Amino acid sequence: MKQALVDNLLVVGMGFMGGSILKAAWEAGVAKRRLGLDRDPQTVKKALAMGIIHQGGYMPQSLPPGRTLVILATHLDAFREKMEELLPYLNPETVVTDVGSVKAPVVKDLTPLLATNGIPFVGSHPIAGTEKSGVENSIKDLFIGTRVIITPTSKTPPEPINLVKNFWQALGARVEEMEPQRHDVVFAAVSHLPHAVTYALVKTMGDSERELGDLLRFSGGGFKDFTRIAASNPHMWREIFRLNKDHVLAFLRRFHVTMKELENLMEEEKWEELEGILEEARWLRRGLD
Amino acid sequence: MKQALVDNLLVVGMGFMGGSILKAAWEAGVAKRRLGLDRDPQTVKKALAMGIIHQGGYMPQSLPPGRTLVILATHLDAFREKMEELLPYLNPETVVTDVGSVKAPVVKDLTPLLATNGIPFVGSHPIAGTEKSGVENSIKDLFIGTRVIITPTSKTPPEPINLVKNFWQALGARVEEMEPQRHDVVFAAVSHLPHAVTYALVKTMGDSERELGDLLRFSGGGFKDFTRIAASNPHMWREIFRLNKDHVLAFLRRFHVTMKELENLMEEEKWEELEGILEEARWLRRGLD
Repeated sequence: MKQALVDNLLVVGMGFMGGSILKAAWEAGVAKRRLGLDRDPQTVKKALAMGIIHQGGYMPQSLPPGRTLVILATHLDAFREKMEELLPYLNPETVVTDVGSVKAPVVKDLTPLLATNGIPFVGSHPIAGTEKSGVENSIKDLFIGTRVIITPTSKTPPEPINLVKNFWQALGARVEEMEPQRHDVVFAAVSHLPHAVTYALVKTMGDSERELGDLLRFSGGGFKDFTRIAASNPHMWREIFRLNKDHVLAFLRRFHVTMKELENLMEEEKWEELEGILEEARWLRRGLD
Repeated sequence: MKQALVDNLLVVGMGFMGGSILKAAWEAGVAKRRLGLDRDPQTVKKALAMGIIHQGGYMPQSLPPGRTLVILATHLDAFREKMEELLPYLNPETVVTDVGSVKAPVVKDLTPLLATNGIPFVGSHPIAGTEKSGVENSIKDLFIGTRVIITPTSKTPPEPINLVKNFWQALGARVEEMEPQRHDVVFAAVSHLPHAVTYALVKTMGDSERELGDLLRFSGGGFKDFTRIAASNPHMWREIFRLNKDHVLAFLRRFHVTMKELENLMEEEKWEELEGILEEARWLRRGLD
């Protein structure tokens, strides 16, 4: 067995992300014991049957001794409650992280709660989104080469930061530090806005189809790629929009301005200018490949 | 050799689409001679070297005798001029089609022009978009299983309709007839609107980055899939927006309404209702796989 970073890895919420973490942690041998909690007893049964956890349940009666890394991998709205329930079972050698797509409100909420027990919190966000869900779809290689943003604050001590960093790196990820607030601005732009736009686009299509007849069956591969992210988990996304509301609204407004600009160029038939904008967008997009 | 449908296949404009048609026609043996025109002498050279045409140039000095299918595969804004130049060389056994993404204005423009020489026009639109371009990227299997919409009018005689239909089917396509006007409504919704939205999204990101610093490098796979179509040819898309302006603007307005609806739900913190909309979009999107 490789050198374990912790005695216990406790994953709270064994969906696609939690399940993938457990599989990757198994592969990397980073924890002596892998433990998993889930509100759904069927998920716990599946995880035990798959061998990805040694022990599981709804809430732990007690945790084995030693150093523990807790990873919150439920929906964002369950983080607080789960931590309140777990806190009495955690020893001072514990470090807590999460995998939420919004960071500032989570850091602000959980840091003081955990501090009452002397336990540090270091936020994490693995950039490994997918429209899949469920432990049965989880992937052991999900983190290989994947970027994971960690969001310590100026007050977080170095040891827990290093533990969380080493954990993700052991799973194959490229770790980058960012301020929680900056994280939420960046991901409002590159992830939350595109999701909102896609949901709106697919809904527009559905509404138009009811009025105008058959449309969607004519959509080509481009539309299907484009709208794949609209098949993502609605509850997860509602929570992202709720917690990152201000930044998402700010980028929605920026997007409106650009849409209006395109619309005006079309209405005024300024085709050369329009082509200039399309050219610029192509240039930007090509830079991403 | 398989039974040829025509003596001459003349492809005007040997970009990605024209090149793919020539390759597929070669494979299917649907024409005795494949001819290609392009304004770029390098493209003609490449096409000759690849063997996809027997003969090529900028304009034909004369066409070989026999039944000819002409396929317009240049940008939309060159269709009229190319047809005016070609018309003197075409015999009455000729049928003309195209591959433009907008149909009503093309049908309206070319039908009377060609009728002066007794030549029928049948519009085509292969739903095989890609962000690639150039004859060197063309694909011989592009049309296998691909939907091709043909847009004859109530006045188009049955023989040319059948020829165009048989041609695409011989290349492996599934052919469907649609009124030109209806085509333009449908594709404003499922193709032109999503392209406008993506261009606007990528531009929003570029503008925001200049103001707020590094954003795009944090985009994940979802964003890259989502915005791939923004790498499409700017001139082609400017022409699509120009020719289908009214329908595109109508769908942009529908999209605005939905975006405003999402924005209002966020501002008023109606999270249950928002989740309902995301759920509906997921349900619609899943239906497309």
